[in-house]
Amino acid sequence: MISLSDLKRRIDGGELSPEAALAQSLGAIEAQENTIGAFVTRAKDPRAASEGPLRGIAVGIKDIIDTADMPTEMGSSIYRGWQPRADAAVVMMLKRAGATIVGKTTTTAFAALDPTATLNPRNHGHTPGGSSAGSAAAVAAGMVPLALGTQTAGSVIRPASFCGVAAIKPSYRLLPTVGVKTYSWTLDTVGLFAAGVEDLALGLAAMTERPELAQHELTKPLRIGVVTQDFAGSVEAASDAALRVAAAAAERAGAAVGMLKLPEVFTEAWQAQAIIQDFEAHRALAWEFATHHGEIAPKLRAKLDETAGIAPSAHVQALAIANRARGAFGGAASEVDVILTYSAPGAAPKGLASTGEPRFNRLWTLLGVPCVNVTADIADGGLPVGVQVIARFGEDAKALAAARFVEDALRR
Amino acid sequence: MISLSDLKRRIDGGELSPEAALAQSLGAIEAQENTIGAFVTRAKDPRAASEGPLRGIAVGIKDIIDTADMPTEMGSSIYRGWQPRADAAVVMMLKRAGATIVGKTTTTAFAALDPTATLNPRNHGHTPGGSSAGSAAAVAAGMVPLALGTQTAGSVIRPASFCGVAAIKPSYRLLPTVGVKTYSWTLDTVGLFAAGVEDLALGLAAMTERPELAQHELTKPLRIGVVTQDFAGSVEAASDAALRVAAAAAERAGAAVGMLKLPEVFTEAWQAQAIIQDFEAHRALAWEFATHHGEIAPKLRAKLDETAGIAPSAHVQALAIANRARGAFGGAASEVDVILTYSAPGAAPKGLASTGEPRFNRLWTLLGVPCVNVTADIADGGLPVGVQVIARFGEDAKALAAARFVEDALRR
Repeated sequence: MISLSDLKRRIDGGELSPEAALAQSLGAIEAQENTIGAFVTRAKDPRAASEGPLRGIAVGIKDIIDTADMPTEMGSSIYRGWQPRADAAVVMMLKRAGATIVGKTTTTAFAALDPTATLNPRNHGHTPGGSSAGSAAAVAAGMVPLALGTQTAGSVIRPASFCGVAAIKPSYRLLPTVGVKTYSWTLDTVGLFAAGVEDLALGLAAMTERPELAQHELTKPLRIGVVTQDFAGSVEAASDAALRVAAAAAERAGAAVGMLKLPEVFTEAWQAQAIIQDFEAHRALAWEFATHHGEIAPKLRAKLDETAGIAPSAHVQALAIANRARGAFGGAASEVDVILTYSAPGAAPKGLASTGEPRFNRLWTLLGVPCVNVTADIADGGLPVGVQVIARFGEDAKALAAARFVEDALRR
Repeated sequence: MISLSDLKRRIDGGELSPEAALAQSLGAIEAQENTIGAFVTRAKDPRAASEGPLRGIAVGIKDIIDTADMPTEMGSSIYRGWQPRADAAVVMMLKRAGATIVGKTTTTAFAALDPTATLNPRNHGHTPGGSSAGSAAAVAAGMVPLALGTQTAGSVIRPASFCGVAAIKPSYRLLPTVGVKTYSWTLDTVGLFAAGVEDLALGLAAMTERPELAQHELTKPLRIGVVTQDFAGSVEAASDAALRVAAAAAERAGAAVGMLKLPEVFTEAWQAQAIIQDFEAHRALAWEFATHHGEIAPKLRAKLDETAGIAPSAHVQALAIANRARGAFGGAASEVDVILTYSAPGAAPKGLASTGEPRFNRLWTLLGVPCVNVTADIADGGLPVGVQVIARFGEDAKALAAARFVEDALRR
């Protein structure tokens, strides 16, 4: 993989020109893309900027995020060739920081259920996960040092876990969703993929112009609460191993690690997430559903057909539960700095028929809290398995610092 | 003005066909539009639906709200002729309820500061207010019984007050903003204009498929807290009179009316609103600012130039204040059912050079609480002056019922 922090150190130090850094990515895309299929559209004539903290950094943008100079097709034939007028806010934040957008990455249709043809760079017989398939795969294959995805249930953390890359789903609305196709306005969150946690921190700090996001000093010892999310169903041996390995490594490195049991409201919140997602999707995709029903990708269409009857009162009730859970989270996690939990039920499933399950991501997206995926273990077939490091709302800097601590501990 | 509730009763009762109801609006537009200038685009061949609670109801849509069959020009030459792919969620909600979209209404550029050429139907020498100028004017002129606008600071309640129409800015995200051009994601709220409060309730209930929004029974006596918003600066005699007239009428009708003083955090929140709005506008309009700076309308351009330096930390701090104020609102208003306050500093200003000031609307938009404008008094030049009835977050039904109580009391 291409390390953003390494590139940036060399560019900042004058050892590497932004042009040469960008050329490395373009060469890697040339070499890998035919096999992996991570891109929908590639920029016509990408140029490196001469200024900005991300000059020379090639970025892939999930194809539900508007770009003014490339089509944005939403993974759906309904938007084939669709050319938005403006760049999304997050695209402009990247450009302002000097990054170069090298292309649009594959997405399941409307960031929902139907797999893309993208392969998992770690094992071509397995899914890269979804919905941000192309962004996770492009980073994993060493084509780009940074990519943007979005998460409504588990579409950033899950593919990152499956592809063995670092990723952050930041606090809700730390990154604006202006110009991003909506699935659920209460949940949709823009996230970042990169080779390692330091890369995420540098990328996020540069985009938001908040250097403190990459400068958090941890209290010692770091207090980690391990959460097993029993409400989210069973876990496979690979993810169970990854969580044990990560917890043990963190403890060896000096962290105070203990089990943390969440109160009942979080089980209710986990259930509420799906209601909110499904209800809001019907409003967000109302035009597509009413006027292009037959053209909607089959898994998503079936999901929308099945959930058309959710009552507005169920949505109101689910939002109330979400609010209660958000309010209760600080108290429930008051004894720890961060939570450590599964990123996914297991390693990437075999085949490309499914992008896997977001069961272990739903709660945290609903809570709006920052989640960082760190690769913790390698399962059969060379498939990576990640864990999530999760902090309180707005504590993105702490989540990143703690994830880097866990990442370092695992590398020892 | 055209009464939605009256039309609906006659249509539901079989006295009036949806076609005839729609024809009334189309005729009124034909007669008035050349003078008032409320529309940017008119639907080519508007047809009445045969089903749905809003069949036969003609609706005007503010031209920052996407429509799949009409351009959406954002009040800016940058979007001249721009044709979105999909209808915004709120447009689909209206269509699903049987309403007929008859056209796109004028808006200040990107719903900000630069006036449109729209006249105030009550006095052509005065502004209709902004930014939802066309929607307020179209209802006031009796062209349509219902129109959609948006409010980031005071762009629904203020033009409603200036034009003498009822309007609701509902609780934050009761109506989705999917497909609505963003100015500030923390603040932007879709609202409704109609002839009277019952019309708003019926329209909102039909759009959201939540009949309870139009069926709230008030406790008796209704407890009203009068808030003067001293933090928001001075008020003109006309608005002062309107608030006194409305409070006295409500008291005569049996309400328990008293003054309510808000704690200091609401003054801070009022100040925080402008910071949030200005900071987020720079992200939401980043593409326009970077690539079409010279084409941005002059007042907005000057505002953006002036506010380009707001630090991300100021935004973070303002959001924290907003959260505190939202949390404190229930307690601060615990002794009352609703708040009664100014809708605007005075009647519509003379001329078309300014759309007036949103000073008395900023706090409530930030709090995300439902606000309903009711016309309370008539100032010099036949200019109406409104008051706002405001309830707690999520209590839109109560806000509407209380506003109807005040409206009834004023009509006696």
